[in-house]
Amino acid sequence: MSVTAAKGFTAAGIAAGIKENGNPDLALVVNTGPRRAAAGVFTSNRVKAAPVLWSEQVLKGGQVSAVVLNSGGANACTGPKGFQDTHATAEKVAEVLGRGAIEVAVCSTGLIGVLLPMDKLLPGVETAAAQLSEHGGEKAAIAIKTTDTVHKTSVVTRNGWTVGGMAKGAGMLAPGLATMLVVLTTDAVVDSDVLDKALRDATRTTFDRVDSDGCMSTNDTVLLLSSGSADVTPDYEEFAEAVRQVCDDLGQQLIRDAEGASKDIKVEVVGAASEDDAVEVGRSIARNNLLKCAIHGEDPNWGRVLSAIGTTKAVFEPDRLNVAINGVWVCKNGGVGEDRDKVDMRYREVHIVADLAAGSETATIWTNDLTADYVHENSAYSS
Amino acid sequence: MSVTAAKGFTAAGIAAGIKENGNPDLALVVNTGPRRAAAGVFTSNRVKAAPVLWSEQVLKGGQVSAVVLNSGGANACTGPKGFQDTHATAEKVAEVLGRGAIEVAVCSTGLIGVLLPMDKLLPGVETAAAQLSEHGGEKAAIAIKTTDTVHKTSVVTRNGWTVGGMAKGAGMLAPGLATMLVVLTTDAVVDSDVLDKALRDATRTTFDRVDSDGCMSTNDTVLLLSSGSADVTPDYEEFAEAVRQVCDDLGQQLIRDAEGASKDIKVEVVGAASEDDAVEVGRSIARNNLLKCAIHGEDPNWGRVLSAIGTTKAVFEPDRLNVAINGVWVCKNGGVGEDRDKVDMRYREVHIVADLAAGSETATIWTNDLTADYVHENSAYSS
Repeated sequence: MSVTAAKGFTAAGIAAGIKENGNPDLALVVNTGPRRAAAGVFTSNRVKAAPVLWSEQVLKGGQVSAVVLNSGGANACTGPKGFQDTHATAEKVAEVLGRGAIEVAVCSTGLIGVLLPMDKLLPGVETAAAQLSEHGGEKAAIAIKTTDTVHKTSVVTRNGWTVGGMAKGAGMLAPGLATMLVVLTTDAVVDSDVLDKALRDATRTTFDRVDSDGCMSTNDTVLLLSSGSADVTPDYEEFAEAVRQVCDDLGQQLIRDAEGASKDIKVEVVGAASEDDAVEVGRSIARNNLLKCAIHGEDPNWGRVLSAIGTTKAVFEPDRLNVAINGVWVCKNGGVGEDRDKVDMRYREVHIVADLAAGSETATIWTNDLTADYVHENSAYSS
Repeated sequence: MSVTAAKGFTAAGIAAGIKENGNPDLALVVNTGPRRAAAGVFTSNRVKAAPVLWSEQVLKGGQVSAVVLNSGGANACTGPKGFQDTHATAEKVAEVLGRGAIEVAVCSTGLIGVLLPMDKLLPGVETAAAQLSEHGGEKAAIAIKTTDTVHKTSVVTRNGWTVGGMAKGAGMLAPGLATMLVVLTTDAVVDSDVLDKALRDATRTTFDRVDSDGCMSTNDTVLLLSSGSADVTPDYEEFAEAVRQVCDDLGQQLIRDAEGASKDIKVEVVGAASEDDAVEVGRSIARNNLLKCAIHGEDPNWGRVLSAIGTTKAVFEPDRLNVAINGVWVCKNGGVGEDRDKVDMRYREVHIVADLAAGSETATIWTNDLTADYVHENSAYSS
């Protein structure tokens, strides 16, 4: 059901001809109201794609009537012409729907440095608008796929209101940095400042901690739109938790679909002096190519975990560090622990616990193993 | 000639039986004087191997009589017993040579988390001492190899004095973080504080800018020993430049021998507002797995360069960035530049220039491509 699970939203997904292979490549999500409050978070990459620059301006108004998304081209590093194209796309959606362009968010995903075929995209907007439906969520989710092998949707329903969403992304591993795009919708009555807080709280501990290959896109966008159609104003904590659950679910789906990956690795840092320390250590472990190769080889190589921890500024003493891999404490007090032969690494999910023995804060970062398939998918690709 | 090119040094390399395959695994370098000033730089990893902790103490005295190096075991994350083993090794060398143990530096390389076979190592010290020779430099260089396919040596000779050295390391790509170890010797008369300054200046722009896979070892050590045997006190600038040349040559040899690599990538950042900015940007580009895969695929994917630059805090405007790959300015002013089909990527060396257009500072980082062979060598390895 995706973005149309919540009442007050219609969606469509079509093949506009942006992708040369004829696959669906254009999605439209429309908020039919009565409210149109919205919030968004965007890539922190300083090289931002034209649609990100545009949508950041849109979200400053706190209101979004529609989101138009295309796959088949990122419209990044495309200069003034690229920005004009994004603007023209928003204007076209506004014209077709009878709304203001400044309430139309735009998302693009695909190759960097290539202009979009506007002669196909603009007619596609008209086609998509004609197919808008309360059941269009799945088609929209399919139309934003790039190297994704499956489309990703999630829904959480509470007392009289719903949060639903769709995502695209192959764990940020996609060729050409083809981006994570997420659109979430709710029919709960929530103002834009509250949406913004709930969304930032949720992304901080979900999408921001999915770190498949450490590479940050120019196009990442997560939007949350409220139609207010359910006529229910939820308790903040309950609403924020529902948003967090949907984000967590979609983030997990991204990791499981990461290009070329054979393992999903949960890096859980415990005993940290601060949450920042836990995140820093988790990211350092998650980004260590040598460890990611070892996990691919089903080798519980705790020395590479310690070596990654040692590069951080976190509070810890080297001779108090402990590491468990799939439940076996292979490193105790900075040295050899339980027998590493006890570690069973046959399954796709691998759980690493790094205990800094320096406090009580924790954080979990998800990543993938590094495989020959990853290299192949990201080197054989002609961009 | 390696570490024995400079007068006043003897060396040996033997098979002590630390490696199960019977290859050479123990090297000894002895300063026969008349002087024994020394300097050292060590890994900045906070998880340091026992020999690093020991040798850091040795170098505080500014004098080194001998260096004993073993391959076949890193003696890292081995607790108090590991440190005792390092100490016992230094004591053994001191006893055999009739020197003080506090002037014996120790270096180890190999797997993390495994104790050294002292019953083989200590007799090996006696064997090595018996074979010390003014022509032993090459054998010493061979004995410190781990996954290295070739041994690495370099010599620079000036007016009456020489700087020579040996290195091991497969671009920091070695399984188990098997470390970069470097021993440099000179017969010039140079005090330890001057050695220290020259060594730090040299490593800062050579070994520190060789960033094959972003993984930092627990054992990295670079030592510079002066015998004073040439009885010449060189001009500082001339001496520092000779040390820099030897370090640069050895660093290049490490990159060219990087495990699984098919390309050596020179990332040159120009137009930076500061040298720190240039280094930060260079490292960000050099560590981007997506770009490293693209280079492996001979794909001049400048979008991945811009995306990597965008994650830094360096001074730049996105729409002023320029990128050249092998001499072709494929990105100009943050957008599409010259025809990317003009880029010839058939050869092993790839030259990326990133122009931040924000100043006049520069820095060069060397890295390698990311290949299926890298994954294989670092995952199939049982540590």
